[in-house]
Amino acid sequence: MHGIIRVLTCDDPTALGAHGRVIEERYALATVSRCIPGQPHGIHDDESERRAEPKIVSLARELADEGAEALIISCAADPALDLTREAVDIPVIGAGSAAAAVSLGLGRRVGVIGIRDQAPPAVRAVLGDHFAGSARPHGVHRTTDLSAPGGREAVVDAASELLGSGADTLLLACTGLNTIGIRPLLEERLRVPVVDPVLAAGLMASYAA
Amino acid sequence: MHGIIRVLTCDDPTALGAHGRVIEERYALATVSRCIPGQPHGIHDDESERRAEPKIVSLARELADEGAEALIISCAADPALDLTREAVDIPVIGAGSAAAAVSLGLGRRVGVIGIRDQAPPAVRAVLGDHFAGSARPHGVHRTTDLSAPGGREAVVDAASELLGSGADTLLLACTGLNTIGIRPLLEERLRVPVVDPVLAAGLMASYAA
Repeated sequence: MHGIIRVLTCDDPTALGAHGRVIEERYALATVSRCIPGQPHGIHDDESERRAEPKIVSLARELADEGAEALIISCAADPALDLTREAVDIPVIGAGSAAAAVSLGLGRRVGVIGIRDQAPPAVRAVLGDHFAGSARPHGVHRTTDLSAPGGREAVVDAASELLGSGADTLLLACTGLNTIGIRPLLEERLRVPVVDPVLAAGLMASYAA
Repeated sequence: MHGIIRVLTCDDPTALGAHGRVIEERYALATVSRCIPGQPHGIHDDESERRAEPKIVSLARELADEGAEALIISCAADPALDLTREAVDIPVIGAGSAAAAVSLGLGRRVGVIGIRDQAPPAVRAVLGDHFAGSARPHGVHRTTDLSAPGGREAVVDAASELLGSGADTLLLACTGLNTIGIRPLLEERLRVPVVDPVLAAGLMASYAA
């Protein structure tokens, strides 16, 4: 069983299991999803990230104790990734560094679309010189804004802007971009590889399995 | 169809297709393998790498013209990767950076086993601070030495040495280590994730497909 740690508090089991289902369908891995408490808008700034860290480590221990063979922290900022790897003895995959890693396999100049003005440091660290810039969709500040009216079009605009400035590959630096299922639309309209952090994390998990 | 560029000249079609078959079996991707001419010992130093570069670009153009949807340069040194990406309009995956990328998804301190005294620069560039050291199996200087008597045991010894100095994940930095099928033995004996460059390249290709 693969443990999926969601950093967005959700009461609805369908919403909670959304990323796990994507991974189960694409990679045929069994998953169990859990979310951190008290953060209905997820991680969207330094304060919300700091607040999430001990909760992520605690969920990781819980899932490892229940027999998880690997864990995915389903957030492109890789919150608490190092802390979690120290806390448990199983592989821990961060969606952000997984997406960056896959992007490096596919392209030379990686444009990053996210919900903060700066690309996540964990993503930039892996991309190194292949980082081609970042863009935040207009009006989007939190993962929950992505599903508001106009959210999808704002993502397409941000993606076009990155391609205009030379990106040849796009990295979706918010797992909420998986939740809204934007990847096929972007690939169809823009004709470049688009790396989704949930799929990238699942891909890494499928290698280890 | 995925084009597999072998950097070891081989007349035997079974040997030529060895990496492609691994990728077909594991990821259900169709492959066509071609090898560069005139290098029966592959790439094993700066001179042999430099000599291989234009041959790799030329094979890449040939495979792209024949309709390949992506290419894999099946060598952990990522020879001519940037040149090839400039020469063709399809994704080009280097086995070295792909293996480094997958390693980053699985571990924190990556030990690199290869056939040269230094880890390939392409691998080190992706690993960054997560590079935990490299080791060359005793008596091995070229990919063809790996299948000589004692080659497999020398690899196990090099791997143990890297774990002893703190590595928690192993990266096989020579695709000849795939050819000798050493990964299961290392994982069974050493109980750490072992990233094979051919499988890692196939994994990246499976994402793009």
